[in-house]
Amino acid sequence: MNFKVPRGTQDILPSESWKWQKVESIIRNLCDNYRYKEIRTPIFEQTELFQRTVGDTTDIVTKEMYTFTDRGNRSMTLRPEGTAPVVRSFVENKMFGYPDQPVKLYYQGPMFRYERQQAGRYRQFVQFGVEAIGSADPAIDAEVIALAMDVYKQAGLTDVKLVLNSLGDRESRNAHRDALVAHFTPRIGEFCSDCQSRLEKNPLRILDCKVDREHPLMETAPSLTDYLNEQSAAYFEQVKGYLDDVGIAYELDPNLVRGLDYYNHTAFEIMSTSSGFGAITTLCGGGRYNGLAEEIGGPYAPGIGFGMSIERLLLALEAEGKSFTQEAELDVYIVTLEESAHRKGFKLLNELRNAGIRADMDYMDRKMKAQMKSADRFNAKAVIVIGQDEVDGNVVQLKNMAEGSQEKIEDTMIIEKIKEQLK
Amino acid sequence: MNFKVPRGTQDILPSESWKWQKVESIIRNLCDNYRYKEIRTPIFEQTELFQRTVGDTTDIVTKEMYTFTDRGNRSMTLRPEGTAPVVRSFVENKMFGYPDQPVKLYYQGPMFRYERQQAGRYRQFVQFGVEAIGSADPAIDAEVIALAMDVYKQAGLTDVKLVLNSLGDRESRNAHRDALVAHFTPRIGEFCSDCQSRLEKNPLRILDCKVDREHPLMETAPSLTDYLNEQSAAYFEQVKGYLDDVGIAYELDPNLVRGLDYYNHTAFEIMSTSSGFGAITTLCGGGRYNGLAEEIGGPYAPGIGFGMSIERLLLALEAEGKSFTQEAELDVYIVTLEESAHRKGFKLLNELRNAGIRADMDYMDRKMKAQMKSADRFNAKAVIVIGQDEVDGNVVQLKNMAEGSQEKIEDTMIIEKIKEQLK
Repeated sequence: MNFKVPRGTQDILPSESWKWQKVESIIRNLCDNYRYKEIRTPIFEQTELFQRTVGDTTDIVTKEMYTFTDRGNRSMTLRPEGTAPVVRSFVENKMFGYPDQPVKLYYQGPMFRYERQQAGRYRQFVQFGVEAIGSADPAIDAEVIALAMDVYKQAGLTDVKLVLNSLGDRESRNAHRDALVAHFTPRIGEFCSDCQSRLEKNPLRILDCKVDREHPLMETAPSLTDYLNEQSAAYFEQVKGYLDDVGIAYELDPNLVRGLDYYNHTAFEIMSTSSGFGAITTLCGGGRYNGLAEEIGGPYAPGIGFGMSIERLLLALEAEGKSFTQEAELDVYIVTLEESAHRKGFKLLNELRNAGIRADMDYMDRKMKAQMKSADRFNAKAVIVIGQDEVDGNVVQLKNMAEGSQEKIEDTMIIEKIKEQLK
Repeated sequence: MNFKVPRGTQDILPSESWKWQKVESIIRNLCDNYRYKEIRTPIFEQTELFQRTVGDTTDIVTKEMYTFTDRGNRSMTLRPEGTAPVVRSFVENKMFGYPDQPVKLYYQGPMFRYERQQAGRYRQFVQFGVEAIGSADPAIDAEVIALAMDVYKQAGLTDVKLVLNSLGDRESRNAHRDALVAHFTPRIGEFCSDCQSRLEKNPLRILDCKVDREHPLMETAPSLTDYLNEQSAAYFEQVKGYLDDVGIAYELDPNLVRGLDYYNHTAFEIMSTSSGFGAITTLCGGGRYNGLAEEIGGPYAPGIGFGMSIERLLLALEAEGKSFTQEAELDVYIVTLEESAHRKGFKLLNELRNAGIRADMDYMDRKMKAQMKSADRFNAKAVIVIGQDEVDGNVVQLKNMAEGSQEKIEDTMIIEKIKEQLK
């Protein structure tokens, strides 16, 4: 029997995992600078949480969720996105009562969507996201966007652009909704069946349809921007003002509506503009969701956040022909030439590691030459050679790989000598 | 509708997540020192992988797996443990052909078992584990054990003990198996139905039974140790020798058999001996699994590894009354007193963060006093105050919180001044 990684998922092997660690360390440091704190929610949640928040008519909920019945006969779903679980936790743990509002949270971890396979899409993908819940200050919209842009900047991406829109408040959205219904109803028979059911439930979603995107009515559909009421328009102006103040450029796109039900006001995406990048250019998507906490049983709490795929960040780096610098794997490699030398080597190995030195040795009983090749592959800065003579004489041979020099060192002096050499 | 975290799982909130980050950073550094590289396998695998490797008769496979059918009609299971996926990846990616053997891997991430709820047991729990695959050198058994012990040492645990056993090779296990069958068969009717079916399939598992552990035949059951053949006994002696050499103390326990089918030779557990700790004292379990790669379709490759629960590590720390030191949350907090000050503050905030300084400001339009309280709670080292006068004068007020002093600073000098103060 041969076992394979499940379709649409991947193993991240050591040749790649160090890049993930780099990205995570950038994220952790930036979140620390911005005072976002990590939250970890479970891999699965009650199915109804996503039906309620992401929306019954979205592709995610209707076609893409990993839903199963657990042994207690409850319907559970592997999280398809991170916002609903975080807001669920915000409500359940009464974070709205924390003395410092907004509550600024971040998460990173796997998400799951059963999508058709294509480049840049995985059924299990890793998302980093932040949620700032409790403030309706337009400055925090700008803060959240600045944080996302900073992640790309620190990762070394240059070919990215920010696309911005406002979905307005409920009143604005309702006015726009009515206009959309009036616009599409006369010719709705020409649209796909999904769109036909969207007309009643959520006509905004029609604009997102992949099937009907070439239909002439799409082009002429009433734009949200024209239906923003005074308050919503003023809010949007302030968000843009803060972005201008800190020098973050954006493109306005009145058709940017985002695929989830819970958004209002600010909506944004960050896309790769690199010519080497594939068809799916969105790296990050986010927006405001002022009604969401209330929707799932909490008090009213305005919120804003984003989610970004780490896979796509790494793909975008590749498309730009950029890469992180990998550090040398090892400080010291120990070559041992027979059994008593091996025992002495293992003791020394342990002492080196206890002293915080990155060290390894041979465990395959190989010839000296093969062991030296390993030391080379690991880019070891120093090599210690131990044979019978060195065991008998309470010494080791220490090679400095940069200088190509070698000297005999007393056992008691090794750690000190190595530390000196590694300086 | 109120949504709750699924039963048996937990949210790790900001008040706790920093401790998880500390543990992960200890793990990452130690693995780096020991040259173990991170591997990340998917959250779910084909169900058969676990049936085949963990074992059809184990509690994990028969009672505790989260198994579901995906939209492609394949049976998938949320991973209940980490070794089988890593060895699956080792075989699938032909790591046995890597120039450097053994391949030394580590993983950390959530695992899933549908267990009865009790203190220290979660249905989703986080495991850190390592696997060294490709070497049958007893020194690497000692290395793996040393790494596990080092994690606890660096985390600050002192009340831990290592328990050791050898399960021997196949020949030894078969001889012992025959002796067990002969021992239990006459009175098997007095045992639970699980044990009755174990007698045929895997009599070793009877020794692990929680129901029958008081039965007198348990005490007198033939011990594996007495059935080790010469080669297995010699191997075990060498492992103990290496542990002695590096000063790692252990207790021998011939009844330590571990709950999974794939172990042979060295088996070990690390337990908490703290009196404050609950009934489940095992912090870490591991052992050798020389046949596992072959079992799932690869070539023969000897391997050894362990898995440890991060939840239990943190519980053990608590039981010992120990804790990590939490760092101050913030370098600078910006207090702003009206709208134009808010805009100036936001710009400055952005500059501070770009300079790598941890900074935050108020987004709730609160009074000065409330903002100062936030600065206190965040333990900010400096506070910047901006009102209308400061906007007009192109200055800010900078308070040094440690010294209680305050001075007026030109806008152009702020970053420099703050950096100096933070030194």
